[in-house]
Amino acid sequence: MQYDVVGIGNALVDVIAHAEDTFIGEHGLVKGSMTLIETERAVELYRALGSAVEMSGGSAANTMCGVASFGGTAAYIGKVDGDDLGVTFGHDMLAVGVHFVGPRPQDDIPTGRCIIVVTPDAQRTMNTYLGVSSLLSPSDIDEQIVANGKVLYMEGYLFDRPEAKEAFRKAASIAHANDRLVSLTLSDSFCVHRHRPDFTSLVSDEVDILFGNEDELLSLYEVSSFDDAVEALRAHDTLAAITRGAAGSVVVTADEVIPIAAERAIRVLDTTGAGDLYASGFLYGITHGLTLSQCGRLGSIAAAEVINHVGPRPLDELNSLLPTEE
Amino acid sequence: MQYDVVGIGNALVDVIAHAEDTFIGEHGLVKGSMTLIETERAVELYRALGSAVEMSGGSAANTMCGVASFGGTAAYIGKVDGDDLGVTFGHDMLAVGVHFVGPRPQDDIPTGRCIIVVTPDAQRTMNTYLGVSSLLSPSDIDEQIVANGKVLYMEGYLFDRPEAKEAFRKAASIAHANDRLVSLTLSDSFCVHRHRPDFTSLVSDEVDILFGNEDELLSLYEVSSFDDAVEALRAHDTLAAITRGAAGSVVVTADEVIPIAAERAIRVLDTTGAGDLYASGFLYGITHGLTLSQCGRLGSIAAAEVINHVGPRPLDELNSLLPTEE
Repeated sequence: MQYDVVGIGNALVDVIAHAEDTFIGEHGLVKGSMTLIETERAVELYRALGSAVEMSGGSAANTMCGVASFGGTAAYIGKVDGDDLGVTFGHDMLAVGVHFVGPRPQDDIPTGRCIIVVTPDAQRTMNTYLGVSSLLSPSDIDEQIVANGKVLYMEGYLFDRPEAKEAFRKAASIAHANDRLVSLTLSDSFCVHRHRPDFTSLVSDEVDILFGNEDELLSLYEVSSFDDAVEALRAHDTLAAITRGAAGSVVVTADEVIPIAAERAIRVLDTTGAGDLYASGFLYGITHGLTLSQCGRLGSIAAAEVINHVGPRPLDELNSLLPTEE
Repeated sequence: MQYDVVGIGNALVDVIAHAEDTFIGEHGLVKGSMTLIETERAVELYRALGSAVEMSGGSAANTMCGVASFGGTAAYIGKVDGDDLGVTFGHDMLAVGVHFVGPRPQDDIPTGRCIIVVTPDAQRTMNTYLGVSSLLSPSDIDEQIVANGKVLYMEGYLFDRPEAKEAFRKAASIAHANDRLVSLTLSDSFCVHRHRPDFTSLVSDEVDILFGNEDELLSLYEVSSFDDAVEALRAHDTLAAITRGAAGSVVVTADEVIPIAAERAIRVLDTTGAGDLYASGFLYGITHGLTLSQCGRLGSIAAAEVINHVGPRPLDELNSLLPTEE
């Protein structure tokens, strides 16, 4: 089986609840960011949280679901347990046709979860208890699957654990050895801050396609203006797609900077998954021979779909949203 | 602690997915109804189902959450396991302030779940795997809690298991011994069909407030016209609130029949929980000294809120939707 995209990341189920802005302050959360939390903190936060909805998530997993929803082929590598959440995660991957090797009960470590607090401004604040997803290691990287994907897509989040970082490096070298493209999402500006030297060397040496948002790019190059960050990026021969929220996105190459308009969302209810789905549209485009501008537009379309409802994955079939004139 | 309403029912987590009408036919489902399923069938259906969302459900549990959301006090008796779904269920009850004795791991029987298929017409078709919820027995009925509730509210679904039926009867006699009101929801027209003799004798002898929809009432009295069903009902001294979908509802007493308009929903996305939430508004009204017509209106308001989004429990605080002029 050939895949358009093979994704690797932290396999998580999202626990999503709405809260007022005061909740963010009272619980010492950093609005809009992703924070890693341990068991005790997860229990404490969950206890304080209002009624929640459980939906499969995980950044790269969301992206793979988006690729499949556009009609592309995708595989995913990530770890879940055989508990209820793990079964849910596995089901939801197979349900959209993403190749995924299902839950394997492991040392009684539960499936990871991401407690997401959505404030009235539709911004999401994420608190991740990694659970078994953090055990991803080089031995989990299936060489055949990575070799069979036109593009390898990996989360910056993987750098938060040494073993997962090794898995990342192993996958990247398999991909390159097979003439495949390697793509990376910067994941989160705090994540970039934690791993800046690693990320800058990755971007200049190993990454063929870079995804990130404006904040993450500013953090990567430690600059304060977007134009400066774009200039820094252009010094490398890396294709990049950088999202800017309501301002749309830009596609950056050594030769050009292509602005992409944001697709108009009917309502903005929950921004969870916006970046993940943007990447799915872009990757679907890249693997289907579209122009960079068309790739960016598919990213915008997918992001607009996912912010229009609660949850990090598309509810509509993205394939039905493909522009007819392209 | 005194409660406005004490609810007893099958404690379930809903697994909700959208599907086309063809899915209903292909899998031999009965559209709009609730069917009890065993493990094998649950696994088979779940496998066929698209991406799903997990949210706490259970008919009487939804109603108790509605009562709490209106600002009333509520307690709930039902059984969950200590697995992920059970923990989720317990969290979501406490999160809205419903008194609930949380998960107790029991003989490795999993928390019950209801696989709900929502078709494009917003109709829901329910397939219930009862799991540990079916072990509800008389020993689970906490005499003090039932005695402390102004109204006891129970699901007709409880009659599907002999032990739960005994629990139902025990709770009803505790309530009456303490001069409390006993209310029943007919749950489902097939459920009424299964237990017609029990339900008719309950309605004439033990039930003070009856909830149901038009189909369930027609099935109860084996008549084909709504007017005939209402006449049959009026022969007993039972207060009844009967919902009629978009046509609103009627409140029936021995002396009068009060029509209640449906509250206009912005959109109708998923009718799951409409009846449960109608009951919550009515019960909140009854326990707060409102007129029958006002009680019905609160029922309509709560039902309109819940059909406007996916999931069986309110997302808005129902208290904020209370009419100001009343």
